[in-house]
Amino acid sequence: MTSDKTFACGKHLTAMRAAQPLVHNITNYVAMNVMANVLLAAGASPAMVHACEEVGEFAAIATVLTVNIGTLSPDWVEAMHIAARVAGDAGKPWVLDPVAAGATAYRRQTAAALTALNPTVIRGNASEILALGASGGAGRGVDAADPVAAAQEAALMLARRTGGVVAVTGAIDFVTDGSRTAHIANGHTLMPRVTALGCALTGIVGAFLAAEKDPFVATVAALAYYGAAGEIAGRDARGPGDFAVRFLDALAALDAPALDAAARVS
Amino acid sequence: MTSDKTFACGKHLTAMRAAQPLVHNITNYVAMNVMANVLLAAGASPAMVHACEEVGEFAAIATVLTVNIGTLSPDWVEAMHIAARVAGDAGKPWVLDPVAAGATAYRRQTAAALTALNPTVIRGNASEILALGASGGAGRGVDAADPVAAAQEAALMLARRTGGVVAVTGAIDFVTDGSRTAHIANGHTLMPRVTALGCALTGIVGAFLAAEKDPFVATVAALAYYGAAGEIAGRDARGPGDFAVRFLDALAALDAPALDAAARVS
Amino acid sequence: MTSDKTFACGKHLTAMRAAQPLVHNITNYVAMNVMANVLLAAGASPAMVHACEEVGEFAAIATVLTVNIGTLSPDWVEAMHIAARVAGDAGKPWVLDPVAAGATAYRRQTAAALTALNPTVIRGNASEILALGASGGAGRGVDAADPVAAAQEAALMLARRTGGVVAVTGAIDFVTDGSRTAHIANGHTLMPRVTALGCALTGIVGAFLAAEKDPFVATVAALAYYGAAGEIAGRDARGPGDFAVRFLDALAALDAPALDAAARVS
Repeated sequence: MTSDKTFACGKHLTAMRAAQPLVHNITNYVAMNVMANVLLAAGASPAMVHACEEVGEFAAIATVLTVNIGTLSPDWVEAMHIAARVAGDAGKPWVLDPVAAGATAYRRQTAAALTALNPTVIRGNASEILALGASGGAGRGVDAADPVAAAQEAALMLARRTGGVVAVTGAIDFVTDGSRTAHIANGHTLMPRVTALGCALTGIVGAFLAAEKDPFVATVAALAYYGAAGEIAGRDARGPGDFAVRFLDALAALDAPALDAAARVS
Repeated sequence: MTSDKTFACGKHLTAMRAAQPLVHNITNYVAMNVMANVLLAAGASPAMVHACEEVGEFAAIATVLTVNIGTLSPDWVEAMHIAARVAGDAGKPWVLDPVAAGATAYRRQTAAALTALNPTVIRGNASEILALGASGGAGRGVDAADPVAAAQEAALMLARRTGGVVAVTGAIDFVTDGSRTAHIANGHTLMPRVTALGCALTGIVGAFLAAEKDPFVATVAALAYYGAAGEIAGRDARGPGDFAVRFLDALAALDAPALDAAARVS
Repeated sequence: MTSDKTFACGKHLTAMRAAQPLVHNITNYVAMNVMANVLLAAGASPAMVHACEEVGEFAAIATVLTVNIGTLSPDWVEAMHIAARVAGDAGKPWVLDPVAAGATAYRRQTAAALTALNPTVIRGNASEILALGASGGAGRGVDAADPVAAAQEAALMLARRTGGVVAVTGAIDFVTDGSRTAHIANGHTLMPRVTALGCALTGIVGAFLAAEKDPFVATVAALAYYGAAGEIAGRDARGPGDFAVRFLDALAALDAPALDAAARVS
């Protein structure tokens, strides 16, 4: 990805806001409220629906689906499969967030089964992408000094296997669709000190997918937008509590020209 | 409702705080934390209890019950019915919040079945009240240019059918018990940008019901209080994150004279 | 506990941060997000895992476990037992938070069964400790004028029965291991106006247990740290919303010397 592409982030934000996409999220209990507020602040329309009795019907109504395995139970796993199949069959984009994919056998199995449904985008941290990328279940992954870099090869292989985009987020994010690659250097050190900001980012990726057909481009723009808002929030934040408040304000205030100026994509 | 009634809002706030009612909420995962904080800030005592094993026993202890169908599953629906029956049989007020009532068949059925138990108050947005009011399940309702106005007729019919109060909230709220009607013009444009503030309002309506026997009057006062706090919060808010923080502060700080001065009921 | 011990609180905070313990929490829906943010702000690493399919495996990975009965259901109760047994068998510390233990029969049974597994620490308010301490199920406990004082005898008996530490938190906290006792006078009146701060404190107790083998000392230090952060947050807070934000900031900013200066342990 050339540096010229950097200037394209802003227009995807504008397009997302114009579309005001209905983003259907099956996510964990910790993240639900934050994710809804992040999506509302950004300009999208969130909905949290997970009952097997209605999740397929709702996935058919929504513009895009996100699936997060943070807090699992058998009926939720079933709902994730129903919704992902409906989205896939309808040609709607969907995003998988494989939280702690390597931590337990139940998570490894669930993440692998959902990955086999070929998500449009998989977004995780380095350990999660390493766990997903491992052919034989190599366990919890590693906590490398530069974890994103450590997962680049796994991300490339995973993207080629699923035919989708894989995003590894951390200090410097890495995005690939198996052939193209990009690094996004935006962000702030307080972001990992607020719970569920990674989960909520998955929703933002979903929202951008609703307005841009190329999922690689949409994912890069979403990550730059999120990181740029984090930088604004971090400028005057007193600590993690104040940062979380300012982050929502920055997501709402950031516009296309400011994003184009702030985005550091290479 | 004459404009003289406007001055009565403050005394209902004072009475609610003096009663410090135990408000039993069966609500969705997104709203639970916000709803608890809103009720605590206002001066009430919230409790979230939903297991079938204890929900009836707890409904018998609590002063008032609220039921919100935001995130459904079969065991929760059963718990909602148990609790609503206990409250109804004991003559305790209860409030129904039919979140996204028209979005799926499961929601339409659940909302209709709970409505048939004759809630003391039903509070929803225009689309939800339209969905509930529709005799034959007309679908998702409409997103009218002035949605509250579009749902007034449905609200009146619904109030006559249930014998309870129906509140349609939006830019200008509408409340009716089938004969009396009121409009409440308080509120702020940032309120829909914070998730679950509508759900949390349902808790505030419940709290006011605990201290005022006339549910129409209690609902009007609750809505004016909530909207007036929103106006105070919105005055200096930097964005939706800051607004959410200031809103809790305003709910706690607002007193009876300030509410009487701010309430715009007609 | 002599006043000399007061000076030891800071070093336990430093040790906890150095350990960066993985705190496994089975907690209620209202508290999950706040608890995660409180633990992150303090410098620990939270994880919320509750499915029976993985909860034992995860408890074996984590450094410490906390179990909170705030929002119960049968499968969660089963998961609590699995995790508590794994932690107990592995000699790992675990904390029980018996939310509203006396409110319903289901809670009394669940709290009693978990207490019988001998938690390292039990942390509750006075009513909860009174409910747990009652031999014959005396009901909901009392709301005494000085509730913590009213529960001291019950706490001592409970500590002797379980062989663990019991902490009664309120305006002035009381901690005992059945022989030693301590009072912690830190805190702020806005703390009970923010939901789930008690639940989140249970996580902080867990984090301190990970770095200090004596659970009595660890619990006292955790409570002093929490209350001291509350005092800092309360200094300039506009209301309960602003307090919640400042509290997270204070948890992150408070260091060992400041804690030693602020702690009021006797």
